[in-house]
Amino acid sequence: MKKTLFEQLEELYPEMVKARRHLHMYPELSFEEQFTPEYVRQHLEVLGIEYRTHVGGNGVVGTLHGGKPGPTVALRADFDALPIQDEKDVPYKSTIDGVSHACGHDVHTAALMAVETVLAGVKGELAGTVVFIHQFAEELPPGGAQLMIADGCLEGVDYIYGAHVWAEDDYGTIGFVPGHAMAGGDNFEITIQGKGGHGAIPHTTVDPLVTMSQLVVNLQQIVSRKMDPNAANVVTIGKFHSGEATNVIPDTATISGTTRTFDADSKDVMEQWIRLMSESTAAQNGATAKVDFTYGCVPLINSEAETKRLKALAETHLTNMQVEEKTPMMTSEDFAYYLEHVPGSFFFVGARNPEVNAVYPHHHPKFDVDERSMMEIGKVFILAVLNHMNGLEVADCEAAETSK
Amino acid sequence: MKKTLFEQLEELYPEMVKARRHLHMYPELSFEEQFTPEYVRQHLEVLGIEYRTHVGGNGVVGTLHGGKPGPTVALRADFDALPIQDEKDVPYKSTIDGVSHACGHDVHTAALMAVETVLAGVKGELAGTVVFIHQFAEELPPGGAQLMIADGCLEGVDYIYGAHVWAEDDYGTIGFVPGHAMAGGDNFEITIQGKGGHGAIPHTTVDPLVTMSQLVVNLQQIVSRKMDPNAANVVTIGKFHSGEATNVIPDTATISGTTRTFDADSKDVMEQWIRLMSESTAAQNGATAKVDFTYGCVPLINSEAETKRLKALAETHLTNMQVEEKTPMMTSEDFAYYLEHVPGSFFFVGARNPEVNAVYPHHHPKFDVDERSMMEIGKVFILAVLNHMNGLEVADCEAAETSK
Amino acid sequence: MKKTLFEQLEELYPEMVKARRHLHMYPELSFEEQFTPEYVRQHLEVLGIEYRTHVGGNGVVGTLHGGKPGPTVALRADFDALPIQDEKDVPYKSTIDGVSHACGHDVHTAALMAVETVLAGVKGELAGTVVFIHQFAEELPPGGAQLMIADGCLEGVDYIYGAHVWAEDDYGTIGFVPGHAMAGGDNFEITIQGKGGHGAIPHTTVDPLVTMSQLVVNLQQIVSRKMDPNAANVVTIGKFHSGEATNVIPDTATISGTTRTFDADSKDVMEQWIRLMSESTAAQNGATAKVDFTYGCVPLINSEAETKRLKALAETHLTNMQVEEKTPMMTSEDFAYYLEHVPGSFFFVGARNPEVNAVYPHHHPKFDVDERSMMEIGKVFILAVLNHMNGLEVADCEAAETSK
Amino acid sequence: MKKTLFEQLEELYPEMVKARRHLHMYPELSFEEQFTPEYVRQHLEVLGIEYRTHVGGNGVVGTLHGGKPGPTVALRADFDALPIQDEKDVPYKSTIDGVSHACGHDVHTAALMAVETVLAGVKGELAGTVVFIHQFAEELPPGGAQLMIADGCLEGVDYIYGAHVWAEDDYGTIGFVPGHAMAGGDNFEITIQGKGGHGAIPHTTVDPLVTMSQLVVNLQQIVSRKMDPNAANVVTIGKFHSGEATNVIPDTATISGTTRTFDADSKDVMEQWIRLMSESTAAQNGATAKVDFTYGCVPLINSEAETKRLKALAETHLTNMQVEEKTPMMTSEDFAYYLEHVPGSFFFVGARNPEVNAVYPHHHPKFDVDERSMMEIGKVFILAVLNHMNGLEVADCEAAETSK
Repeated sequence: MKKTLFEQLEELYPEMVKARRHLHMYPELSFEEQFTPEYVRQHLEVLGIEYRTHVGGNGVVGTLHGGKPGPTVALRADFDALPIQDEKDVPYKSTIDGVSHACGHDVHTAALMAVETVLAGVKGELAGTVVFIHQFAEELPPGGAQLMIADGCLEGVDYIYGAHVWAEDDYGTIGFVPGHAMAGGDNFEITIQGKGGHGAIPHTTVDPLVTMSQLVVNLQQIVSRKMDPNAANVVTIGKFHSGEATNVIPDTATISGTTRTFDADSKDVMEQWIRLMSESTAAQNGATAKVDFTYGCVPLINSEAETKRLKALAETHLTNMQVEEKTPMMTSEDFAYYLEHVPGSFFFVGARNPEVNAVYPHHHPKFDVDERSMMEIGKVFILAVLNHMNGLEVADCEAAETSK
Repeated sequence: MKKTLFEQLEELYPEMVKARRHLHMYPELSFEEQFTPEYVRQHLEVLGIEYRTHVGGNGVVGTLHGGKPGPTVALRADFDALPIQDEKDVPYKSTIDGVSHACGHDVHTAALMAVETVLAGVKGELAGTVVFIHQFAEELPPGGAQLMIADGCLEGVDYIYGAHVWAEDDYGTIGFVPGHAMAGGDNFEITIQGKGGHGAIPHTTVDPLVTMSQLVVNLQQIVSRKMDPNAANVVTIGKFHSGEATNVIPDTATISGTTRTFDADSKDVMEQWIRLMSESTAAQNGATAKVDFTYGCVPLINSEAETKRLKALAETHLTNMQVEEKTPMMTSEDFAYYLEHVPGSFFFVGARNPEVNAVYPHHHPKFDVDERSMMEIGKVFILAVLNHMNGLEVADCEAAETSK
Repeated sequence: MKKTLFEQLEELYPEMVKARRHLHMYPELSFEEQFTPEYVRQHLEVLGIEYRTHVGGNGVVGTLHGGKPGPTVALRADFDALPIQDEKDVPYKSTIDGVSHACGHDVHTAALMAVETVLAGVKGELAGTVVFIHQFAEELPPGGAQLMIADGCLEGVDYIYGAHVWAEDDYGTIGFVPGHAMAGGDNFEITIQGKGGHGAIPHTTVDPLVTMSQLVVNLQQIVSRKMDPNAANVVTIGKFHSGEATNVIPDTATISGTTRTFDADSKDVMEQWIRLMSESTAAQNGATAKVDFTYGCVPLINSEAETKRLKALAETHLTNMQVEEKTPMMTSEDFAYYLEHVPGSFFFVGARNPEVNAVYPHHHPKFDVDERSMMEIGKVFILAVLNHMNGLEVADCEAAETSK
Repeated sequence: MKKTLFEQLEELYPEMVKARRHLHMYPELSFEEQFTPEYVRQHLEVLGIEYRTHVGGNGVVGTLHGGKPGPTVALRADFDALPIQDEKDVPYKSTIDGVSHACGHDVHTAALMAVETVLAGVKGELAGTVVFIHQFAEELPPGGAQLMIADGCLEGVDYIYGAHVWAEDDYGTIGFVPGHAMAGGDNFEITIQGKGGHGAIPHTTVDPLVTMSQLVVNLQQIVSRKMDPNAANVVTIGKFHSGEATNVIPDTATISGTTRTFDADSKDVMEQWIRLMSESTAAQNGATAKVDFTYGCVPLINSEAETKRLKALAETHLTNMQVEEKTPMMTSEDFAYYLEHVPGSFFFVGARNPEVNAVYPHHHPKFDVDERSMMEIGKVFILAVLNHMNGLEVADCEAAETSK
């Protein structure tokens, strides 16, 4: 069956590209998704797959009941976009000002939609149930995963798999990470309250913009001086806004940023230093600081067994791909929460390709992918399903296949 | 005549307040003024004063021809507002989001309008011509003054006077500054071009936000280390914008700011250091810097003679006021350009008064004034006009007045 | 034989303490060692062990020929001290102003001297040769190891072992690290050349002290922004000297520091950023920077096999000790160079003990150790020798011992 | 008489140069002067001028009683040197390592010694008393002036004059400053107490060197943001010492510096910010700061009358000189204390001359002067004495001179 499904998926490639580009042109910010879940819903409707919308908010969950009894395998794709201006010069460029799919969630969604089409066609032969989790709001804490889980999306699910298209790896590679795979992290927002006034008479003001600049510089010392060099930690400021006029010293300055780490202690230590540095740096200028933390994602820990088996399956069945074990990544993923409930694995499909100008990192205004990566995501999803439901094994698979 | 005019002005006080509050509620940004010049135009129309609109852009100039021959005296009031959110809790609070009269130009305009009403009433007795210059765009370089001058607003003008309501001085004081009165300055905008990317993998990016923060800190050394402590110089950053998302390292960071100084050499020295520091600080991070200067106002140099005479007139005729000589100010004023063409003086009317909550510095979100300051501006304007046209003198004035 | 040797070593403990305290009172800086090598030489002389002095400079190498043929095992102890003021309040406090054994090399030397005494007593029974390497100048690049190797200290040597007393671990623990064990690193010195002058007229000078302070702050960004968070890297400034008088802006400022990393690429990347940041930061102030690198130690890579065997031996024969596998350390050791030539292992003996006030980190002015750690170093050395020469095995050892 | 004395002084020029170069070769630090006061004492002894040594410490005061009654005029020269390495390449280079006359006090002393010789020769004709104040320790607070005053050096003195050779002005100019002439200022020392340790494991330490670097950068904001730009204020750090070894994070870092201002309020404001910034910057890193202030010199306020008269005398009698009114200087002088007790004036004699390589600012390692400036100092001193004692007037002076 694997061979047939792979062939059907390949035939669907133009459809996948079309769907991905449609999503790419109409990106929606986290928690504000409307058209995207409706687009997914219509697809499931057409395929006759049972579905539920507004799961945990803007999520959509489809359920495909196979013709035979067996385990329940969930496949997840996220579909929210980022507040980044699309600076690519392509026909499928984002039409929404300041919003773009600069992380590749459009790719995940289009790939899963194609898998849905293919599996729906062999529904009767499947020994188990496939749950399609179309998740909203992966980019913005608290994220959609926890909300969809709370709304029951994992009920009855035995295994879960997810993928991320990966711009740092060349197209042609698929990466697996057993165990600790992606960092946890928090988001924070810091506001320094000074006292505004005319830019020409600074001594009558408390300048929050200079103080905040100092704080940004000071915060570099958390990683450089305060954390164990052998542990991987990041403090990044993504946003600094202060003032509106050239000759007016503003009343306040605000930054927001994110921390990343692989252990809970470091999370706390970084929060403590961020708070102390903010308050002390503000105090030094006669200003005050307000620090808010939004506790973010837990570290993503792949099941060792599921990951190793899926990697072996990929090595066997995707012979044109280079299958690798990757080192842990500093980025976070709220797929981590699914793995707190059921075993599974989150894998990475290379998408870098200079020939199609897919050379920019994730979250870059010119981020793009080799779209063939969608096909590989789909194939690994199919391997995971067939392995659990239809006895697809790592070894002797082609033989087994032939005999079916 | 002075006595009559002062009494008429006092009777107009409720009108002045009404006009000022109307302007306060509908502030307009520099170069975007539409309703304000129209408001002024209608006032001149009603008074039957000859006027010209769209002078140099959005300026309005009224000309009142006196009944007798004599010199031409110009009175100037500016009418643009600032990109500052009004945070006052008053009935006349700005209705425009993010825009307010936080510098008092509404006060200047309302005062001049009242002067127009009063002088129009004694038109036949005036020995000369009064030109009312309603200037747009004082706050934003290149400013409206140069444009209005280029468009002929000073043609035939012999003397010019202007005023600024002054929040640092208590209501009840009027300040004069012979000679160097206000600083010159330039505006600058600096953009650091880094390379954006995911906040969790900083080593794959060139972080412009941290580099710009460093630059802001570094720029403090221009005043602290590079300029003669005996000279008065200021470098202020009024605006810092970088990034839109918490977990995305942005591609660029932009600041804008202003320099202030009393001499042309220092202006150049500060520009050179700003350029060098921007380029070097960017280079150090592997980024690049783009630095744009908008050459701003020249220093405002009051005519010694006009200023001393006006001060003496104020001392004699405004006995309820405390008349003072002030030290030079770091703020700039494009009134400076008028003084490059004709003699005159720019004076300062105290407006601070805790009883009416007028305690915040200029450009502060809660800036307000003791509105009686409008009356004093109007009176000094009348003194200037009568002095040049109707022989009002400093000494023996009351006697002279009586005899008229 | 092991049992006998251990007992003899225990009897020698008071001697060890005496020797260590003597060395502690007369510490000598790297490359300036005179009395210490002489002290070691006399000890070897008395024991009748063949020796060579001034090996590679100030090193001393003893050679003990066993009575039977067998492999050659080298044991190494370093003996130089640090430019740190001893701030301990103990009778054996350093008598040399500004110099102290704040890293524990006195402990290593005293331990090896006791091992020499013990092994000399069983010379005839040893099946092989023991080489005692007393190394000078471990603390200061290029270090004594390379010089002693060049002078032949490893000739004929089959295995080498070394130890470090370890203040971060409690006394009672012994740590082994198979493979990558300690970081490599470089030292650097940066001088910023400004233009001195009177402190009251900074604008006539180019202040190198402020610029260097900025540079120190900027250098924090190498680790926080420029290096992969998943790799362990350190940039530390150990020394900042500028100026002699309170009211004089100095001509120059100088810092020196060290980098640490586990891979050669990062070494280069850090050097490049240090150079670029130094030059750019200086340029920004109109100053110049001179950057000198002293290429330091390579990473220390223990032989997997030797390390695992020695660990197993320790677990079996030092039952009162807690034997652990440690994670790699950021500190460097020029023992790394010996391991580039012969297999061997460098291990860590816990020495922390609040009861004897041994609670300060290495290189701290109050650094001290639980002196019993010397005994454990000696015992592991003896285990290594006996294992290679006299068939001491991990298992059945006590039985084997008994039967001898 | 003036003419004769001027001629005699000119003849003494080779002597002056000899004396100055002798002093230059044997400079002594403030409060440590021994040979210099002895050198002066011998000179007074030889001239038969009554003297007192160890005045207030290391000061020497000579008293020349004129043959006729009249006022008492004091002339003051300071004689201490600076902790600056002499980097000039001249035969009279400092022979003392790390100490040099980089401020020109040797010049002052040699000039006053020549004046002593000349005036001693006309003793009988002088109508009054001349007091020669050879002051120690001008460079180091609390300074010698207050101590010498407390020890009676101003007893009976009616007027006092002092001079400073001035490297910023060309030789050929003499500058006078009526009223506020030189800044007051304080000295401060700040120590940040961190926690030392090995440079490779920063997270186990509290790095005081990085924190102090940050503090130096932060302190720049006092002048750039906290003080009125129209007031002249300086905060300079002259010294930064931390650490002794490249790979050791030190326990402490220490800076010392100086503030300069013209008013007492600003002195306090700067102290408060220095204290607050030190404590807050330390706190932010988990360190502590100790801040010590040594209250320094008061501002130097010349008598208006004495200064104007002396200036007029110089204009009349030193026709080869360009006599100027200078603006106030940021440097401090404890001559300020004498002026708190008696009227007088402190003037500035230009000494810059590229032909003799005298182009470096005061306190620069290569500072030197055009030695002819000594002659001009001497002449102005003589003018001051003759004016008060022998009726030398500004106008008609040559006539008056001739008639004598």
